[in-house]
Amino acid sequence: MREYVVAILGATGAVGHRLLNELEHSQIPVKKIKLLASQRSAGQKLKFHQQEITVEEAQPDSFTGVDLVLSSAGGTVSQQLLPEAVKRGAVCVDNTSAFRMQEGVPLVIPGVNDQELSQHRGIIANPNCSTIQMVAALYPIYQRWGIDQIIVSTYQAVSGAGQAAWDELLSETQARLNEQPAKAQILPTASDSKHYPLAFNLLPQIDVFEDDGYTHEEWKMIHETKKILFNDQNSDRIKVTATCVRVPVEVGHGETVYFVLKDKSATASAIQGEVAKTPGLVLQDDPQKQLYPQPLLAAGKKATFVGRVRADQENPGAFHMWVVADNLLRGAASNTVEIAECLVRDDLVRVIK
Amino acid sequence: MREYVVAILGATGAVGHRLLNELEHSQIPVKKIKLLASQRSAGQKLKFHQQEITVEEAQPDSFTGVDLVLSSAGGTVSQQLLPEAVKRGAVCVDNTSAFRMQEGVPLVIPGVNDQELSQHRGIIANPNCSTIQMVAALYPIYQRWGIDQIIVSTYQAVSGAGQAAWDELLSETQARLNEQPAKAQILPTASDSKHYPLAFNLLPQIDVFEDDGYTHEEWKMIHETKKILFNDQNSDRIKVTATCVRVPVEVGHGETVYFVLKDKSATASAIQGEVAKTPGLVLQDDPQKQLYPQPLLAAGKKATFVGRVRADQENPGAFHMWVVADNLLRGAASNTVEIAECLVRDDLVRVIK
Repeated sequence: MREYVVAILGATGAVGHRLLNELEHSQIPVKKIKLLASQRSAGQKLKFHQQEITVEEAQPDSFTGVDLVLSSAGGTVSQQLLPEAVKRGAVCVDNTSAFRMQEGVPLVIPGVNDQELSQHRGIIANPNCSTIQMVAALYPIYQRWGIDQIIVSTYQAVSGAGQAAWDELLSETQARLNEQPAKAQILPTASDSKHYPLAFNLLPQIDVFEDDGYTHEEWKMIHETKKILFNDQNSDRIKVTATCVRVPVEVGHGETVYFVLKDKSATASAIQGEVAKTPGLVLQDDPQKQLYPQPLLAAGKKATFVGRVRADQENPGAFHMWVVADNLLRGAASNTVEIAECLVRDDLVRVIK
Repeated sequence: MREYVVAILGATGAVGHRLLNELEHSQIPVKKIKLLASQRSAGQKLKFHQQEITVEEAQPDSFTGVDLVLSSAGGTVSQQLLPEAVKRGAVCVDNTSAFRMQEGVPLVIPGVNDQELSQHRGIIANPNCSTIQMVAALYPIYQRWGIDQIIVSTYQAVSGAGQAAWDELLSETQARLNEQPAKAQILPTASDSKHYPLAFNLLPQIDVFEDDGYTHEEWKMIHETKKILFNDQNSDRIKVTATCVRVPVEVGHGETVYFVLKDKSATASAIQGEVAKTPGLVLQDDPQKQLYPQPLLAAGKKATFVGRVRADQENPGAFHMWVVADNLLRGAASNTVEIAECLVRDDLVRVIK
């Protein structure tokens, strides 16, 4: 059995920690592991299967001899280093937006479109967290009835903006409880000029604004969804639109997903049935028992949770559902490691010409 | 000039305090004020124009000699006491859901349908908080272009569930920051059997579930919107559907409102123009300056704030907007006092046969 030298790029971040843990519990035979991060984090020690590993500074030559790179170190780092890794013969699964929309880069949710992995040229992209859970939940519905239109509103947890933003929410929250003023320096988006508190607040801005008034996060949900479903003959006609809102939640994105099916014969209970039998999806949908997905229940789990499935009573073929998933696991680390498992399963951890 | 004996029923609650303050700053000539509440709260003292007023226990005979009742004491209390007040000659503006859908009871947002006040039979209903801000924001758009369909997702503050729920959120939040377990006893809905923490969580249940899988809050948004717009010839064709979610915010509901116009010639900038010139609405919509409505900015204000107006680029005539308002003021106390001001202005504080 082939064993792999695996590098985790961005090993010290919130997603990096989870990548390490998911890898430890994965089907991937690991011969050796390298933990890579910025100069600032180099020297830290992390454990993999009881063994202490020292984090090294990521540089082009760090990838010599590496078979597989799991990357979550930010878009700029990915853009600089992953082509260097590929040059040295590694296959990279990237968790940033750097390569997602690039032609020839498969954008993959295992269980939805992992057949596209066979076309990779060294880099495979992990979709945006909010895209993954929505498309994962919609896919069995899409396969059976077809989808004309998706309208999504997100309720996104702060951990999606990184550890520093997460810490900022907690310190702002404590300040408010002490009746002291909150000082925002990171949210909504570190790279933008104004910063607002998120504690007990809602910020309808995730990532920067595009010229058309949509945020880049909204743009990602729209365009990544189309790219992921593109290989299907009906998919070119899917309309997707989104509003993304940051909410004072630590882990676990919520989404209200409104979708209009092509085939108007679908019912809410048939949709629930498709969701319930799909691996990776968990149906939590019993109003009489007050059963529905919640971020606190989804945090720490790899599944995508679906509930509140019901018909729009005035628009035939249109339905609502409420989708919740751990954005650091389902939306990031778990999806990345599952892609790597597919690569190993199909013997695709090699340079493909 | 006629002066009025005004009673506030439910004076000691979060909305009751705001009713008192709004009344103090209103156009209504108050001859005398009576503060009414449950036996438990009787004896408390509150100030009106520097004068200390003792809260009395609300009973049928409390309303003898009262001209105008502003009520926010819960549906059961309204159902029991408001007919008694009407019997004694008072006109009641009720903030609960007790009478909203009753035929012959005007359901009023001033500036939208206050012309219906002339038909009152003693009780006027204040719409649900989440309905008021949505319909207020949509109304100028509806008047100019007509609306075919509304799809709304709410992000509702805990104060809408009452002071005890508000306190519960704060104590749960402190518990989480202290790494102690949170104990939920009220939310999502005191009257339901299960309770879940809201701190750093999302609860897709507001009020109890109906048989069709919608919550009663969602039902209210759908049916109240139709009732409010019913007097217009086109309104019977408006489709409305909703998902209501409680979020860990103290004051200020957010709403993503997606609407499809009849007249496809509308543009985002023309919609922004209509909003900007409508009294009671404030346009906060400049992505380049990161200007958009936020609960922390809306709390304590009477206006409805509108931003993130933009076209769905794949569905002609369809637009998004993000609407935020103080649920205790715009969604409750201010709307109630504005209805009372309209009644005074039009000399409608009298029994109308």
